[in-house]
Amino acid sequence: MLDALQTLDGLDEAALLRASEDDIARYITDWTGMFESQAEAVLRPSSTAEVSAIMRWAHEHKVPVVPMGGNTGLCGGATTSGMDKAIILSLERMKQIRHFDAAAMTMEVEAGCILEELHKQAEEADLFFPLYFGARGNCMIGGNLSTNAGGSNVLRYGNTRDLCLGLEVVLPDGRILNLLSGLRKNNTGYDLKNLFIGAEGTLGIITAASLKMVPMPKARATAFLALNSISDALAVLNRMQRATGGAVEAFELMPDILMRQYAEKLPHLKQPFENPPRFSVLMEIATPEEARAAIGSDGKSVITAELENLLGAALEEGQIFDAVVAQNEQQRYDMWHLRESAALVMIIPQGVTLDVALPLSGIEAFLEDCITKLEPIVPGVRLSPLSHLGDGNLHLNVLAADDEAFPDEALRAQIVHIVDDLVVAHKGSFSAEHGIGLAKKKEMSRLKDPVALAVMRAIKSVLDPHYIMNPGKVVPSA
Amino acid sequence: MLDALQTLDGLDEAALLRASEDDIARYITDWTGMFESQAEAVLRPSSTAEVSAIMRWAHEHKVPVVPMGGNTGLCGGATTSGMDKAIILSLERMKQIRHFDAAAMTMEVEAGCILEELHKQAEEADLFFPLYFGARGNCMIGGNLSTNAGGSNVLRYGNTRDLCLGLEVVLPDGRILNLLSGLRKNNTGYDLKNLFIGAEGTLGIITAASLKMVPMPKARATAFLALNSISDALAVLNRMQRATGGAVEAFELMPDILMRQYAEKLPHLKQPFENPPRFSVLMEIATPEEARAAIGSDGKSVITAELENLLGAALEEGQIFDAVVAQNEQQRYDMWHLRESAALVMIIPQGVTLDVALPLSGIEAFLEDCITKLEPIVPGVRLSPLSHLGDGNLHLNVLAADDEAFPDEALRAQIVHIVDDLVVAHKGSFSAEHGIGLAKKKEMSRLKDPVALAVMRAIKSVLDPHYIMNPGKVVPSA
Repeated sequence: MLDALQTLDGLDEAALLRASEDDIARYITDWTGMFESQAEAVLRPSSTAEVSAIMRWAHEHKVPVVPMGGNTGLCGGATTSGMDKAIILSLERMKQIRHFDAAAMTMEVEAGCILEELHKQAEEADLFFPLYFGARGNCMIGGNLSTNAGGSNVLRYGNTRDLCLGLEVVLPDGRILNLLSGLRKNNTGYDLKNLFIGAEGTLGIITAASLKMVPMPKARATAFLALNSISDALAVLNRMQRATGGAVEAFELMPDILMRQYAEKLPHLKQPFENPPRFSVLMEIATPEEARAAIGSDGKSVITAELENLLGAALEEGQIFDAVVAQNEQQRYDMWHLRESAALVMIIPQGVTLDVALPLSGIEAFLEDCITKLEPIVPGVRLSPLSHLGDGNLHLNVLAADDEAFPDEALRAQIVHIVDDLVVAHKGSFSAEHGIGLAKKKEMSRLKDPVALAVMRAIKSVLDPHYIMNPGKVVPSA
Repeated sequence: MLDALQTLDGLDEAALLRASEDDIARYITDWTGMFESQAEAVLRPSSTAEVSAIMRWAHEHKVPVVPMGGNTGLCGGATTSGMDKAIILSLERMKQIRHFDAAAMTMEVEAGCILEELHKQAEEADLFFPLYFGARGNCMIGGNLSTNAGGSNVLRYGNTRDLCLGLEVVLPDGRILNLLSGLRKNNTGYDLKNLFIGAEGTLGIITAASLKMVPMPKARATAFLALNSISDALAVLNRMQRATGGAVEAFELMPDILMRQYAEKLPHLKQPFENPPRFSVLMEIATPEEARAAIGSDGKSVITAELENLLGAALEEGQIFDAVVAQNEQQRYDMWHLRESAALVMIIPQGVTLDVALPLSGIEAFLEDCITKLEPIVPGVRLSPLSHLGDGNLHLNVLAADDEAFPDEALRAQIVHIVDDLVVAHKGSFSAEHGIGLAKKKEMSRLKDPVALAVMRAIKSVLDPHYIMNPGKVVPSA
C-alpha cells in the first residue's frame, strides 16, 4: 500500500513517514491521554494538489484518512482510535499566507498556519485576528476551522465560523472545491462553506481559508471583579455592554474552586484577590478609537478611566464587591496568564469536565439542578463552572466532596449522562466549542434531534460514499 | 388531487385557495413583471404541523411545491414559472412571535412575520433587529432567511444569516427538523442551519427561526457627502471606521445618474445637493452609548458633533468636497427616503440592472473594464453603480447613451454576459444579495465552480429525491 503512495504524482520524500519510523510518535499521541492512536503512515503534503492526489488514491483504495492540524483537540477528532490501517494526513507543511490585503482586512492562508503566526501577521498591519485561546501557539487554523473553535473573544467577534469568508476544500474523492471568496456578500447557491466548518474533517479536508480581520484595538482596559452570584455577573455584563456600546471583548467567569486549585497546583501565579470570592470575572474592554486610547495626566488611558468609573457604579449598587483594574501591560498579562492556565488544573484525573452552553437566563437554575441530581450519587458534589459567560458557555468541572478521584469509569459516565440530560432539559448544547470527535459521539446518538442526525448521515453518505474521511467521528452510524 | 388535500389532517378551510378563485391572483403575480406564474392551488397553513402534513402528501404524490413569503423577491424564486401543476405554499398565516427574550436579546418567530413587525417588537424592548431594506413593510422573515437578504446595515451587522441563531425547517418529505437553538455556541455536528439559509426553498421550508437582536442605538448621525471618486469614498469609509470604532451602520454610494433619474421621475424627493456630484454617499453612524447620545448646548448630539468634526477633516484633506448633516429626524427621514426610492427608478425597462459584489480594492478597475468591454456594443454606454459600498455590493445599472431602451433581449443578455464575466475575472460574485432564483440560473451553470455545483446537486438529490421542493430554482440540472 505504502509503495503505491510514494509513487503518487508530485508527492516528495518529506511527505511520507512510515509507521516504523520513530518520529511518527507525536502524530499518534493524544495529549489529553484519552485516546490511543496508530497509523500505517503519516502523510505531510505541502500543496493542495498533493492533498488531492492523496485523497484520489485513498478513495480508489478505500483507505481511511484522518486529517490533523496542531493535534491540540480535546475530543479525539484527530486520532485513529479504533481504526484499522488508517493514514494520518498532517497539514503542518501547508503554512503559507497566500495573500494579505490590509485595506480589505482579509488574508488567504493555508490550513497549517499556526494561529499565533496569524496574530503576528495581522498585528504587523495594525490589524487584529480575534480568535484567541490557550492553544494558540500550537493549534493550526485548519483545525480551528474544522472544529469551529471558540475561545475568549467570541462574545465580541464570533466563533471561527464568523471570521471565515471562504474556504478551499479537498473532497473525499480528491476533487478540489474552491469557495475561496474574500467577499462579504455572495448569494450564489447553497452555503457550502459552513458545512465544512465544524465538520471535523469528516466531509473533506480544509486546505486554505479566506479570513477576515478587524482594526487593531488602540487600547484595552482589563479588570478582575469579585461577585457573589452568576446573576450579578450577567447584570454587570449587560450594564457594561450597554455603557460601552458592545465593547466588551472578554467576560470570563472563574469560580472560587478554580482559584483554590491554582493556589495549590500553580502557586507562582498571581491571584487578583487574597481570598477567592465566590466568583471572579476577568473582564476586558477594547477600543479602536484614538481618542479613548489617549493617556491622561494621571497616566491612565481614557478607556481605563471609563472602566474604573463603570466599576465604581457597579460597586456602589452592590453588583460587585471588589475590583482590581490592570494598571499596566504586565498586570494585564498576569490576569490573562491566570485564566489561560485553567486547562492545566482542570483536565485532571479527579474531576469530570464538560463543555456545555446554556441560555444565559437558565444558567443558575441549571447549576442548581445539577447539584440536586448529582448529590444522590456523589454526596457533597461540587461544581466549578469556568465560563465564557457572555456566550453561555460553561467548562463545567464536576468534583467529589473530598478532592478524591471518582472511583470508576461507570460513575464518571453516569455524571456526564445526568449533566447532559439537564443541559438538554434547559435548552442548552452538550458541546459548545470543543466539538464531538469521539468523546461525545454517544451523546450525539442519545441527545441530538434524530431528524438532524438523519440529515447529517445523508450528507455524509453522498459526499463520502466509501466512508473513508475521518470515519467514525462526529456522526454516529444509524 | 385537491380533494385529497382538503382531507389532510388538521388543514382548515382557510388554508386552501383553488386556482379558480379570484384571490389567487396576488400569489401568482410577480411584481418585477419578469416571470409568469400559475398554480393548481395556494395553500396557507397556519402551523408547522400543517406544513409537515402538506409536504408528506406532496412527497407521496410527487407534487411540486413553491414556498412563498412576502413575494417581494427580485429573481423569481417564488414563482411557478415553467412548472406544471405546482402548488404555492404561502407562509403568511404563520406570523406568531413564539418567544421574546429581551435579556438574551433573542426572539423565536414564525416564517410569515413581516420584517417591519419584528422591528417594532424589538423597539418596544429597546432593542434593534438590524435587517433593513426597502421592502421591509411587505417582505417576510422566512423569505429573508431563504434568500439570505442583505440591505443597508450589512456593513455593521451582517446578512440575514448572521442574525439567525437557529431554524425550524420542514424537509421535502415532511419531516420536521428542529434546529431552533437560541445559543451563541453550539458545536454538535454539521451546521445544517446555514445550508437552508439562502437555499431559496429548494431544500425544505423554513417555518420558524431564532433571531438575535442588538441594543437599540441611543442616537444616530446621518449625512450626505459629495465625492469625486470611489477610491475617495473608500478612503473616507476607512477613516470613519477607524475613528468611530466600527460604528458606521450605512455607507450607501449613489452616482450622479441616479440623482438625475430621481429629479426626473420623482421630483418631489428632496435632493441633498443642488447639482448632483459625481458620487453622493449616504452615511450613518450610530451609538448605543448614553454619553454620545447626549444633547449639547448647541442642540446637537455628541455623535452628530463628532460626525461634523470628522467630515470637516475629510473636507480639508479633499477626500470629500461637500457634506450635509441631518439636523433633525425629518431631515434624516428625507435622506433615507431618497435612498430607498432607488428601486422605483432603477427597475426600469430601459436599463439592465445587476446585483454584484467585488473586492473593495477592485471596484474601480472593474467599472473601467465594464466601460471598455461594453462600449463596442453600446456606444456611449453609461454605468450607474448604486452601492452598499462597505460590502463591495453594487446594484449596477447599465444604460444606453440616450436613455433609450435597449432594442432587444439578445443585447440585454449580452450585456449581462459581459459584465458577469468581468465580475468573475475580478474575483467578485454575480449575485451579491438578491439570490439566484430563475433569473440567474444560467449564470450559475456558466460561472459557478463546477465542483461546487456538483456538491449542491448531490445535497439536493439526497434531501429532495423526488425533486418537488421549489424545483428548477438555484441549482441547474447537470
